[in-house]
Amino acid sequence: MKANHTIHQHCHHTVWNNKIEPVKSVTPGESVAFEVMDASGGQFNEKSTSVDVAKINFAQVNPVTGPIYVEGAEPGDTLEVEIEEFGTLSWGWTAIIPGFGLLADEFKDPYLKIWDLNNQHTAEFLHGVELPVKPFPGTIGVALPEEGDFGIVPPRKNGGNMDIRHLTKGTRLYLPVWVKGALFSVGDTHAAQGDGEVCGTAIEAPMHIKLKFHLHKGKTIQEPRFMTPGPLTTGLDEKGYYVTTGHGPDLLEASKHAVRYMIEHLEMAHGMSRQEAYALSSVAVDLKISEIVDVPNYLISAYLPRAIFK
Amino acid sequence: MKANHTIHQHCHHTVWNNKIEPVKSVTPGESVAFEVMDASGGQFNEKSTSVDVAKINFAQVNPVTGPIYVEGAEPGDTLEVEIEEFGTLSWGWTAIIPGFGLLADEFKDPYLKIWDLNNQHTAEFLHGVELPVKPFPGTIGVALPEEGDFGIVPPRKNGGNMDIRHLTKGTRLYLPVWVKGALFSVGDTHAAQGDGEVCGTAIEAPMHIKLKFHLHKGKTIQEPRFMTPGPLTTGLDEKGYYVTTGHGPDLLEASKHAVRYMIEHLEMAHGMSRQEAYALSSVAVDLKISEIVDVPNYLISAYLPRAIFK
Repeated sequence: MKANHTIHQHCHHTVWNNKIEPVKSVTPGESVAFEVMDASGGQFNEKSTSVDVAKINFAQVNPVTGPIYVEGAEPGDTLEVEIEEFGTLSWGWTAIIPGFGLLADEFKDPYLKIWDLNNQHTAEFLHGVELPVKPFPGTIGVALPEEGDFGIVPPRKNGGNMDIRHLTKGTRLYLPVWVKGALFSVGDTHAAQGDGEVCGTAIEAPMHIKLKFHLHKGKTIQEPRFMTPGPLTTGLDEKGYYVTTGHGPDLLEASKHAVRYMIEHLEMAHGMSRQEAYALSSVAVDLKISEIVDVPNYLISAYLPRAIFK
Repeated sequence: MKANHTIHQHCHHTVWNNKIEPVKSVTPGESVAFEVMDASGGQFNEKSTSVDVAKINFAQVNPVTGPIYVEGAEPGDTLEVEIEEFGTLSWGWTAIIPGFGLLADEFKDPYLKIWDLNNQHTAEFLHGVELPVKPFPGTIGVALPEEGDFGIVPPRKNGGNMDIRHLTKGTRLYLPVWVKGALFSVGDTHAAQGDGEVCGTAIEAPMHIKLKFHLHKGKTIQEPRFMTPGPLTTGLDEKGYYVTTGHGPDLLEASKHAVRYMIEHLEMAHGMSRQEAYALSSVAVDLKISEIVDVPNYLISAYLPRAIFK
């Protein structure tokens, strides 16, 4: 991966804090290759099992590589991050981590799926169930203006752990700059994910990512935006979708209903275990807000791409 | 439109009530052509203006054509509705109705856009802004088991005003049957809509719709489901998307943020008025739940298809 700069994975941090010293300074127009650890911060490997999930140390999770200082960036500017390239994949993991995820109350036991990603293009979940690989960074952002440590898990106005699955190759992400130099970091690379990431993890996979930086002086935005170059669901939408719905006055509860019905469908129609169905929903099922206006009930739909069944 | 039965628009109702007499009895395997009124119930026409929006009588809105009695349908069964065909389009409307819509507090003035749909395939919003026509029924459902009148606006476990924009031709909708005969009705046909229908209305357009009914005896579901035959966004995704995001602990508030940023973008980048930007968001922008697990902050993304700009 050819870039103007390379940032190695030992240059990482696990909180957002604008006092963390930048590891490199880059000029707008330059590209940077980041070596990204998996979201367990190296606590899992290809031989890990659900026993290891139960022992995970949360202080080490979701490391981001960086920060880098962008020359000339000042509060009120917008930093454009062009997602240029992803490096070679080898393996990944998807876990159900007790206490985490949309249905945490119903899934109390740890689960771990190890994925073989060596063919670079597809990821087999079970025999006959195969996802296209579509790498993106789950966590990507800049330092916050407020002083002190901010946990890495929730996304904020600085971006961060947004888990937007369409930040794939060719996409341009726009981040508000909150401090001098922006102090940009990236991590938590995913090989695939559904909109929602319902069980709390995607196909978590270490990989390199190459980004190019551009600066829009005086262009101010309040929260991140992005622009994709083309279709979002190539390789997934060809055979249509099986969709469950949940309605109600609370979007979170409606989402839980839709996901529960999807899990039930995957168990009944595809013979999966309940944990497998939940994990597959996290990596392949998209949550859409079908309507958010027909008060008092909103409607959430969970879309399962039928193309993943071979 | 050739079908086994035709139900005319004068056979309509504006509440769900399982005591409403069915207008026709159909056997599973038969098709029915429904004549559907526009969601104003005939209060608007091609010459209407925002003045008419302010005078709308809510008791007449969102009429559904029906109900029909499905032979053999009993509580605990699933009614499958195959969406076979849509009739000729001529015109449609999109309104900002005071007091209704995701940003009702910020949009107090009535607005009305009348659409010319005579070419059947595209709908021009403004010069150079054109949407592909993708007809679907906004309201489709069966009678509820509970006695009495239930307002037509919110969706419920009977389906109803779900405003799911992917109930297009070839889709199969599965509805739980709650009463003997199911008592199915359909209405509120839309020529196009974004996921979310954020201003509260789509391209509301009267049209015929032909549906075929199938019955799954003893197959019980709790809320509607559906299956689409192919890609969802043909004609919309070719040029990618411009996307705004909103984050926060409340999905509704996060959605409002994302939509506000989208409106700001449409004003600044495309020179639209605030009302136009809100209305266009309702008919063309898709709300996705990017992540619903990174507590305490969830992230909503609003996707604007760039292909609508010619």
